[in-house]
Amino acid sequence: MDVEAGRLAFTTDGYVVSPLFFPGGDIGKLAVCGTVNDLAVMGAEPLWMSLGMVLEEGLLVSDLRVVIGSVGTWARKAKVRLITGDTKVVERGKCDGVYLTTAGVGRVVAADPPGAARARPGDAVMVNGFLGDHGMAIMAARSGLSFAPALESDCAPLWDLVRTILDTGCAVHAMRDLTRGGLAGAVCDLARASGTTVYLEEGSLPVRPAVRGACDLLGFDVLTVANEGKLVLFCPAADAETVLAAMKGHEHGAEAAIVGEVGPEEPGMAVLRTILGGERVIDQPVGEDLPRIC
Amino acid sequence: MDVEAGRLAFTTDGYVVSPLFFPGGDIGKLAVCGTVNDLAVMGAEPLWMSLGMVLEEGLLVSDLRVVIGSVGTWARKAKVRLITGDTKVVERGKCDGVYLTTAGVGRVVAADPPGAARARPGDAVMVNGFLGDHGMAIMAARSGLSFAPALESDCAPLWDLVRTILDTGCAVHAMRDLTRGGLAGAVCDLARASGTTVYLEEGSLPVRPAVRGACDLLGFDVLTVANEGKLVLFCPAADAETVLAAMKGHEHGAEAAIVGEVGPEEPGMAVLRTILGGERVIDQPVGEDLPRIC
Repeated sequence: MDVEAGRLAFTTDGYVVSPLFFPGGDIGKLAVCGTVNDLAVMGAEPLWMSLGMVLEEGLLVSDLRVVIGSVGTWARKAKVRLITGDTKVVERGKCDGVYLTTAGVGRVVAADPPGAARARPGDAVMVNGFLGDHGMAIMAARSGLSFAPALESDCAPLWDLVRTILDTGCAVHAMRDLTRGGLAGAVCDLARASGTTVYLEEGSLPVRPAVRGACDLLGFDVLTVANEGKLVLFCPAADAETVLAAMKGHEHGAEAAIVGEVGPEEPGMAVLRTILGGERVIDQPVGEDLPRIC
Repeated sequence: MDVEAGRLAFTTDGYVVSPLFFPGGDIGKLAVCGTVNDLAVMGAEPLWMSLGMVLEEGLLVSDLRVVIGSVGTWARKAKVRLITGDTKVVERGKCDGVYLTTAGVGRVVAADPPGAARARPGDAVMVNGFLGDHGMAIMAARSGLSFAPALESDCAPLWDLVRTILDTGCAVHAMRDLTRGGLAGAVCDLARASGTTVYLEEGSLPVRPAVRGACDLLGFDVLTVANEGKLVLFCPAADAETVLAAMKGHEHGAEAAIVGEVGPEEPGMAVLRTILGGERVIDQPVGEDLPRIC
């Protein structure tokens, strides 16, 4: 791969989601979107990716075809080139159908790349849409529970959205995709890294009624549930409406919302302002509410 | 990671070796060496690598420490920087201790990079040392058989050797590491890609007596047994002695040997000239003599 002088970003992620196929996607789509999104939130245009597969003896070739087809489809949609791969086969019972591990290389195009430590007091905090869809869709698919309307993963590649945001010229201080640990994990990380307090407004969080219902029923906190097509973004309050408008004009940001702000107090904490007017500290999720979510 | 304009190489490989620890190495050393060697045979200096781990619930932390320590030790020795990683945990029984998947990025420094299609009639074929050590060491470790002297994996990072060879200024037409499929797999690939016939001289193949004995006893063909610190190299016959001397002067090439030549006939084949004066076609290995060798 020929490159110009500049800064590259390099990322890797493993995918062991169970089940392999779920409403809104499959492990192949998840692997491409996860890789693209890891790069996107670094302000990097995804260019190349690798795909390592561990396959279980006895895996249906038809299932493998669907997974690989999905990788191809989503790589084309996300305009990332899959240029190297590897396959290992292990004995029956020694993995669980398919495990994928990708790596991604991208070109950092943000003039002033977002960084976890760059969140500043006064920043607005926003997300690009409904929270918790992926995690609760996996939960429903795994448990056999059905909800009406059906829960679907939000799995989507976000580079095009991020580029749209960067093209506004507004300063993006920090950005993070909301996978394992959900929005809670991301804001706790960013608060700690930047030495600020991040306030989230419970009443402003976009959550589908069906997802809220499923969370209430099953005892999940939507703040910690994994997403696969969502990011949180910190930018100066003065730029917030411009960034919000850019997001809302994009297919992956139609339900974007300003959900909080950054304050200077008690550095390193995240706080939820509840709809009842109270405040509670948001804990860094430890362990996983739901294993093998991605 | 900041880069100058130029050509990069990108590779990925998965490691599911069983057992995780074996004479001469472990899955961590294997992962670093495999990544480095994939890049080296493309004429690329290894710069950065990623490490994705799938861990089984119940894995001993002490075992994980050894594996990660080994990754660190060998990455430092090979001068490759491990800059991104990921960990997934699956339930007990859903993997087999540790699976690793790496990706590597390197800078192509060979002025005229080796390529599978570039083998030419008249080229000398050489290897950098004893064949079959890794595969037979794994076989022995797995089966509980012991040989005297003990069989040890040849697992080693080869970039420094390759750079020494490139520094001679001799033309390297093709290079391939001898992992799954062994020397047989590599020469079959290179013969087909270049439309030439590759002849190997059985009497010139460097094989340790203990490995030869283990192969005879257990019914393995040493030509198809995997290596993890060996490569095959094609260069013009006129350069062969210079390249051989360079290899022999390096710790990973002390037992290097010229093992064959490239002829123009019957394009796309590899042929073994036996010690009895006969010839037999070398078949492309199908499947694996030994699953989970790397």
